[in-house]
Amino acid sequence: MPNEREEKMNKERKEVCLSGSGGQGLILAGIILAEAAGIYDGFEVAQTQSYGPEARGGASRSEVIISKDKIDYPKVMKSDILLALTQQACDKYIKNLSNDGFLLADSTQVLKIPPFPGKIYQYPITDDAIKVMGNRLVANIISLGIIVQLTDIVSRDAIKKALISRIPARIKDLNIKALEHGFEVAKKL
Amino acid sequence: MPNEREEKMNKERKEVCLSGSGGQGLILAGIILAEAAGIYDGFEVAQTQSYGPEARGGASRSEVIISKDKIDYPKVMKSDILLALTQQACDKYIKNLSNDGFLLADSTQVLKIPPFPGKIYQYPITDDAIKVMGNRLVANIISLGIIVQLTDIVSRDAIKKALISRIPARIKDLNIKALEHGFEVAKKL
Repeated sequence: MPNEREEKMNKERKEVCLSGSGGQGLILAGIILAEAAGIYDGFEVAQTQSYGPEARGGASRSEVIISKDKIDYPKVMKSDILLALTQQACDKYIKNLSNDGFLLADSTQVLKIPPFPGKIYQYPITDDAIKVMGNRLVANIISLGIIVQLTDIVSRDAIKKALISRIPARIKDLNIKALEHGFEVAKKL
Repeated sequence: MPNEREEKMNKERKEVCLSGSGGQGLILAGIILAEAAGIYDGFEVAQTQSYGPEARGGASRSEVIISKDKIDYPKVMKSDILLALTQQACDKYIKNLSNDGFLLADSTQVLKIPPFPGKIYQYPITDDAIKVMGNRLVANIISLGIIVQLTDIVSRDAIKKALISRIPARIKDLNIKALEHGFEVAKKL
């Protein structure tokens, strides 16, 4: 019997855009989210990143499409969920966010959110990565924790399994803590 | 003035499929190839992996589309270049390889190549990774070296830069050697 989350996803195609700048681990975050959905939660998934000559030093993004059905057209049309870790990324990718979509913005990096009618969540993600976790590189994983807890796009069990399978052993504990910190942060948002 | 490789790519869209099994680093290889083309060689690039419930333990692939023009449709239709590190992956993905395409198969893993009219190159890539490089995990990087040297899909300078930017410092030397080993192997094929 399908659970509530599976029913919700049943006829839907969900598109997620993880954005920020190069070096913030957004491709890895996209791969972990995609593997959580595809390998552990049983959805069809396409995970894409695009580059052009403008990519050097600019806004960076990773896109994940999650569907119950086979994905014939993997390009993200309108995102349902947008993570923006920088102002530049928010300005650029919010245009592709569906009007009833979900935005998670780093509140100390994205100081001005363009007009947007959907759900907006703001949290000092990078600050927490540095101050609570002691490593700014886990902002991507904290973000995944917040998104999964708030949107139920994949199960918490699946995202944890996918994280563990993708992260080198020596930084596994740190990353699991970061993910769980994201879950806890989201409960208070 | 555009060089010969740029002219060749000018009106073309090249599609690359890197296939094998999970854990062979094919997603990483796809990202390195995509960043080489997009960030260092100035092409437009889309890099995709797809997962479904069948992905657990099965054939794995990473797709890279490289184009001079903006990529509106990122799904790989017919590949121009296929890397197959396992028999299962070769059997599955050769169907999507263009008839005038290019196949690089691991000769000790892919024992039977399905009928295919295009160019076929066979080499014991995984064996070399183990015996020459001392680490089976660099089969993906040796493969990139062979493909780049034989097809000129990106410049050798770009692939090396992209590799260096993506590989942790402690395994950088090993991976650069693996890439250069791939270049040398290809010269004798």
